[in-house]
Amino acid sequence: MAQMHPFGISVNDIRQASERLTEKVIRTPVIPCDALSKTLDLDLHFKAENLQHEGSFKIRGATNAVLALANRVGKNQLAQRGVITHSSGNHAAALARAASLLGVGARIVMPHNSSPRKLTAVQRYGIQPILCEPSSEARQLKAEEIIAETRAQMIHAYDDPDIIAGQGTVGLEIIEQIKNIDVILAPVGGGGLLAGILVAVKSIAPNTQVFGCEPTFADDAYRSLLAGAIEKPTRYDSVADGLRTCLGEITFPIIKHFVDGILLVDESEILEATRTIATQGRLVAEPSGAVTLAAATRYHQQFKGKRVVAVISGGNLDMGGCSLGRA
Amino acid sequence: MAQMHPFGISVNDIRQASERLTEKVIRTPVIPCDALSKTLDLDLHFKAENLQHEGSFKIRGATNAVLALANRVGKNQLAQRGVITHSSGNHAAALARAASLLGVGARIVMPHNSSPRKLTAVQRYGIQPILCEPSSEARQLKAEEIIAETRAQMIHAYDDPDIIAGQGTVGLEIIEQIKNIDVILAPVGGGGLLAGILVAVKSIAPNTQVFGCEPTFADDAYRSLLAGAIEKPTRYDSVADGLRTCLGEITFPIIKHFVDGILLVDESEILEATRTIATQGRLVAEPSGAVTLAAATRYHQQFKGKRVVAVISGGNLDMGGCSLGRA
Repeated sequence: MAQMHPFGISVNDIRQASERLTEKVIRTPVIPCDALSKTLDLDLHFKAENLQHEGSFKIRGATNAVLALANRVGKNQLAQRGVITHSSGNHAAALARAASLLGVGARIVMPHNSSPRKLTAVQRYGIQPILCEPSSEARQLKAEEIIAETRAQMIHAYDDPDIIAGQGTVGLEIIEQIKNIDVILAPVGGGGLLAGILVAVKSIAPNTQVFGCEPTFADDAYRSLLAGAIEKPTRYDSVADGLRTCLGEITFPIIKHFVDGILLVDESEILEATRTIATQGRLVAEPSGAVTLAAATRYHQQFKGKRVVAVISGGNLDMGGCSLGRA
Repeated sequence: MAQMHPFGISVNDIRQASERLTEKVIRTPVIPCDALSKTLDLDLHFKAENLQHEGSFKIRGATNAVLALANRVGKNQLAQRGVITHSSGNHAAALARAASLLGVGARIVMPHNSSPRKLTAVQRYGIQPILCEPSSEARQLKAEEIIAETRAQMIHAYDDPDIIAGQGTVGLEIIEQIKNIDVILAPVGGGGLLAGILVAVKSIAPNTQVFGCEPTFADDAYRSLLAGAIEKPTRYDSVADGLRTCLGEITFPIIKHFVDGILLVDESEILEATRTIATQGRLVAEPSGAVTLAAATRYHQQFKGKRVVAVISGGNLDMGGCSLGRA
């Protein structure tokens, strides 16, 4: 019997995920940004997960989870039951795509006030989202109802070892793509991405510091580390809508053990960073993906002269009202 | 004595340029775009030169030209004389950066109505642009005055074999980065990029079709091919400001010999493509860089089912009025 890793996931799980994901996800580029490096007096690079399929890192975890599950329960069995999740964000389209790759049916529960862009992304895979009330409880309840009925296999957005292993491939790739990294900055919402990166990076390049970045308006990870227990967000209105969730039972201990710190940024800093990534980095980031540049900017003196990789986790920005190209 | 290639440049010049440019320019990624591939019923990829240093492919030609010149005349000699160009666009900052890399002084003549963004990009290298009236004649005259005074070495924006060889590395990389390409789409202004890509691609992968893309408002390349001689633009107001120039004495014969056609697109199509690259491709393109997606969209039936690489040549977009992130 395989030995269980104390955190439920090891760097080998991430290496396995990486093999599974070959040709199925994009090995997104790490791109230097000269202009911002000069301004901030550090050596800044972006890991451009906004260029991932469906515009976010979520495809990595979702695809790994569906593939791993198909291995465990058998593809036919999985196809009979299908998979299910609830999400208002990028995990929804990611699971839709992952299931579609394997020819497995997917049920996606989404709050009725989800952004039209996120709903459309799911519909493109021929899946009609199942709408519910916007609360966490309503989402969970609706999903449980359907599971009772269909035996569909739940694939949680972040608190799942296969999801974390998939997201961890972001960290694995960064280490392979660029040498002598001093600091990696990653957004933290539910903590799947941060936990995965931590397991990969702290195993392979333990001298590289890894910080989680989150909005002051969603500082639950920061407070959870202070308290030593998972704290809930106190408000749900940050512009970084992907980071409004709290840490999970699996992600929290990993982050608590490995992370070098949580950096908080304000709403105006996030918006400014979203804009700066577009003008100076020529990349479209959503606010949740721009918190890392916001942190690099706010705390640039702490990182002076260092090689910093900021993970741009997603690029599904609602561009309503933007006069792009009409300058 | 080396044999002169009939067009003044061969694929070997491009391979040499590629070696010279290693570590000096970014090997920009080729990124698939699933959503647009589905919409347009073709297999669409972007060659993201908007992610290049200074946000455009121009850095390739400028860096290659300065390095090649330093080899020919000696670095000290070149440092004494310095280099000079006139440009209202991305070549200005590209030459500023290239000269700065080698510690060579650069004089950059720019029309006084150049965009503030383009002026600032030059100033970041400690170079004060020399302003002149906006006409081609005034630019040329001002540059000649300074050359007479300083013996500075002129590096033309496109009609120069070293520039073309540098830009050709875009084609070389595309062929190395992705297999079985049916079609490459490249913008055509002065023709340096298109000519360079043609020399590379038609030597290495002769079955790959290469089309130039230009605005109907700047259809001089289209008319030049019809007429068999270089035609001037009839207007200078296309939103694709990088494509308002006419072909050169060196670029025209190459394009005439090799190109599979010139595709024209309208202003509204260019603006729509600029926006679509941001929303569906998560990349910031300037209108001149978006003409290739505009062409892929307008002529998608011609390319049905084919693997198409659209070169996004630059990303220096003036974002005035854009509410990015304030959705």
